[in-house]
Amino acid sequence: MKIVSQPEELAQFRQTLQGSVGFVPTMGALHNGHLSLIKRSIAENDHTVVSLFVNPTQFLPGEDLSTYPRRQEADLKLCRLAGVDAVFTPQATAMYSIEEPILCAPDTLGYMLEGLRRPGHFDGVLRVVLKLFNLTQPAHAYFGKKDAQQLYLIQNMVRTLFLPVSIVPCDIVREEDGLALSSRNVYLSPDERQEALKLSKALKHASRLVIQKEFHAKVLERTMQETLAPLHVEYARVLRRDFTPLERVELGNTLIAIAAYVGSTRLIDNLWI
Amino acid sequence: MKIVSQPEELAQFRQTLQGSVGFVPTMGALHNGHLSLIKRSIAENDHTVVSLFVNPTQFLPGEDLSTYPRRQEADLKLCRLAGVDAVFTPQATAMYSIEEPILCAPDTLGYMLEGLRRPGHFDGVLRVVLKLFNLTQPAHAYFGKKDAQQLYLIQNMVRTLFLPVSIVPCDIVREEDGLALSSRNVYLSPDERQEALKLSKALKHASRLVIQKEFHAKVLERTMQETLAPLHVEYARVLRRDFTPLERVELGNTLIAIAAYVGSTRLIDNLWI
Repeated sequence: MKIVSQPEELAQFRQTLQGSVGFVPTMGALHNGHLSLIKRSIAENDHTVVSLFVNPTQFLPGEDLSTYPRRQEADLKLCRLAGVDAVFTPQATAMYSIEEPILCAPDTLGYMLEGLRRPGHFDGVLRVVLKLFNLTQPAHAYFGKKDAQQLYLIQNMVRTLFLPVSIVPCDIVREEDGLALSSRNVYLSPDERQEALKLSKALKHASRLVIQKEFHAKVLERTMQETLAPLHVEYARVLRRDFTPLERVELGNTLIAIAAYVGSTRLIDNLWI
Repeated sequence: MKIVSQPEELAQFRQTLQGSVGFVPTMGALHNGHLSLIKRSIAENDHTVVSLFVNPTQFLPGEDLSTYPRRQEADLKLCRLAGVDAVFTPQATAMYSIEEPILCAPDTLGYMLEGLRRPGHFDGVLRVVLKLFNLTQPAHAYFGKKDAQQLYLIQNMVRTLFLPVSIVPCDIVREEDGLALSSRNVYLSPDERQEALKLSKALKHASRLVIQKEFHAKVLERTMQETLAPLHVEYARVLRRDFTPLERVELGNTLIAIAAYVGSTRLIDNLWI
């Protein structure tokens, strides 16, 4: 497995690859969610490139950039065992220049829900993903559905900037008790770990109501708020998969999304119905 | 020669091309300057794609978007005669979406000189060029030195976004009397056409002074202002090729750039010394 830290070196290595390249961009601290993307990329492409980069431009001032879990040795071992061809581990100074064009997320999509609470977050996400796509020139790039809005914004970027890459959305991977895997779960104390189950429980409860033909978005949202109490809920929303609002659930075109704090840890989860 | 107006169709056509692709982005109204780029691309690549697109996002309110010369039939004939493989003639509605990420030119480079007088112009230039690069995936892309700042900003974009394309700067093509070719020259009346010679004369005069060892930027700039009078001069500057200021000419690393109005027509010209 090749380990590359310089962008130019990755670009050169890419040129030597024949056949299709699958790409899995990550911020490291790999868990089984990441591994499911990596395994799928390996199954579907001739080569797989994984990036491990805690991208500073997608963190807001006061967020957990400095404390975000970093476990490069373990990550490299996991990638090697999985059969990854190359891992890209750049420094921020190699990825960004003082004078460079800046990509900004779309006005509405980029600044609602997650973007409303984290203004500028998606600017940083799209900016780094565009650079990583240019370096790896993948046929397929793999993203988890857990970051549903990120996934949709990247699909929007690919479509509107005409990027020659196919985005593959991958299902959320959960612990046995339902907690969605996240690198930030390590922040949770044992008590908080229990409290965190309220997110997946609220989603499950909402989907049960839908099965019982309760289609009113407002009713589902109110029920989720009740299940989530007393957590500090940032949002618990029922909306279309293109992030437009809806009054009644449209089966096959609906996303239920939650963001809530468990202690000082901000968690997100969602369900596609 | 293939004529394509839909972005998706161009992307599909691109996939059928084996070997290197050279790309010449233009706003149409082709003159011998454009033709020199096209001929060079044809000589240096297996295939050549030319785009004819008067890109609305690089025009400011009040600029000449609606009156910019459009001569698509003549342009297509010139491309066919030159041996171009494909011409891309999109509508603006096919190139832009309501919700899409926006590229902004670097803060300093994008908003000085041309960018100071035309704030946002380079945002639009980079935005469309990035899209066109993604669609055509060229090995080489050809740009005239006449738009020196545009050329430098595109080189900056390619370097900092890690775009897999090589930018080829091409010399300015001039009329016999020195006037730099421009699609906007058609706006000039016969009298203005004479007045317009002052731009190339001022550059020639400055370069003669440099040969005579006058290296002070301020002196050269003052002399140019005198040659250009009584035209309304926006700038007549001596600076480094990376657009940083200098006090004395650095041979091989200096750009002399002029923007001035001849009547109501804004013209630019420059010299690399």
